[in-house]
Amino acid sequence: MGKLFIIGLGPGGALDTTPRAEAALRESQVIFGYTTYIHLIRDRFPEKELVATPMTTEAQRCRLCLERALLGQTAAMVCSGDAGVYGMAGLMHQICRNHPELSIQVIPGVTAATAGAALLGAPLTHDFAVISLSDALTPWETIERRLRLAAEGDFVLCLYNPASKARPDTLKRAAAILLERLPPETPCGLAENISREGEAVWLCTLGELETQKANMFTTVFVGSSQTQVINGRLVTPRGYEQRGAL
Amino acid sequence: MGKLFIIGLGPGGALDTTPRAEAALRESQVIFGYTTYIHLIRDRFPEKELVATPMTTEAQRCRLCLERALLGQTAAMVCSGDAGVYGMAGLMHQICRNHPELSIQVIPGVTAATAGAALLGAPLTHDFAVISLSDALTPWETIERRLRLAAEGDFVLCLYNPASKARPDTLKRAAAILLERLPPETPCGLAENISREGEAVWLCTLGELETQKANMFTTVFVGSSQTQVINGRLVTPRGYEQRGAL
Repeated sequence: MGKLFIIGLGPGGALDTTPRAEAALRESQVIFGYTTYIHLIRDRFPEKELVATPMTTEAQRCRLCLERALLGQTAAMVCSGDAGVYGMAGLMHQICRNHPELSIQVIPGVTAATAGAALLGAPLTHDFAVISLSDALTPWETIERRLRLAAEGDFVLCLYNPASKARPDTLKRAAAILLERLPPETPCGLAENISREGEAVWLCTLGELETQKANMFTTVFVGSSQTQVINGRLVTPRGYEQRGAL
Repeated sequence: MGKLFIIGLGPGGALDTTPRAEAALRESQVIFGYTTYIHLIRDRFPEKELVATPMTTEAQRCRLCLERALLGQTAAMVCSGDAGVYGMAGLMHQICRNHPELSIQVIPGVTAATAGAALLGAPLTHDFAVISLSDALTPWETIERRLRLAAEGDFVLCLYNPASKARPDTLKRAAAILLERLPPETPCGLAENISREGEAVWLCTLGELETQKANMFTTVFVGSSQTQVINGRLVTPRGYEQRGAL
């Protein structure tokens, strides 16, 4: 009987891949992934069969992976970050719907939300909402609605896929929506190429967010009403000061 | 000059601790943490000075850790999961406010949201909101308000700290609030003692959620309108089927 792993590699290189993920990669006979992610592990597993397929062929990639498991192999699908956060874990379960006999195991990884937050300080120490700004698979009206409600709920926001070549202005549009409800001085942070070459983090205000350069490798954080900048770091207090502990 | 690490160990044992976290632990001369978390690493670092302090002494624990860094030591504060998600990263930055000269580095970890999601299937593959149900540091009205707005926004919900001995009925209260806006058949999942002894995951509906046993080591997932149960797994599609890819 074949076996399927869906593995989150963490944001960058081997330093952020858990031993559990590493063990699953070693156990796998064939590893599928988006070209960029396969490149991340190519040097670490030169002896493995690695299959890289480009962006937008996700369903086909999952089907190829499933075919191998049905042949009795141990097959892995890798994603950067966590495989369950805008990753392949959902699609793979959908593709495997008619094969309840298969063993499918998702191996979690460090996702860009917490890896980016760590680089910026501690923006996610209180309630937060994670929203993808990509309208490739989600109607823009749904994204707008979620931005408005999350702002109204005073959540810290973590925005994935803030922009791409095909939609250079989505971050600008999102910032304009948030500015309807949040003050322009709301502190924000951006993290780019987390744990990879070109890693960078910087702060700005919500009023300045629309002019920030972002791409598919940027994660954007928008503070809640409680978020502060402390010594250049973005920090959302948990509430200890209200209890008199500070 | 001293140095401070704030380290996320991941949800359970060594299998979920990243090499980056492991390296920071090795580099540290003294490691502080809540008693349970210090026990998780005690056997792995028998040669280290480990300082365990009980729950509710978080500010004191951070101050003790800061004192060591000010003495020139490399001091670490450990948390389970990710240190920036309801962990010590925020409080530590607040406690260190008057010491901008200190090097403070947050090392991210796999948080219960994604580790629990992986065990359950793929509930977080689309936009989600993370809310703690603990009213120890947050007014219950704020929690209620966020639950209502997140439900209105059709976010998947990930609930931390769903219950404790001091507040046995918070999950029940939260479920009642969500039922004002969401159908009782909404699929839910619970993950308990993730990657630890006694690990368990199970599914229920939102209508059944109020009767589920939960404690401080349980993470609760409430599906969006899109979330499905596929072969016993909780799965939120990303939207590929709308694009005709399935």
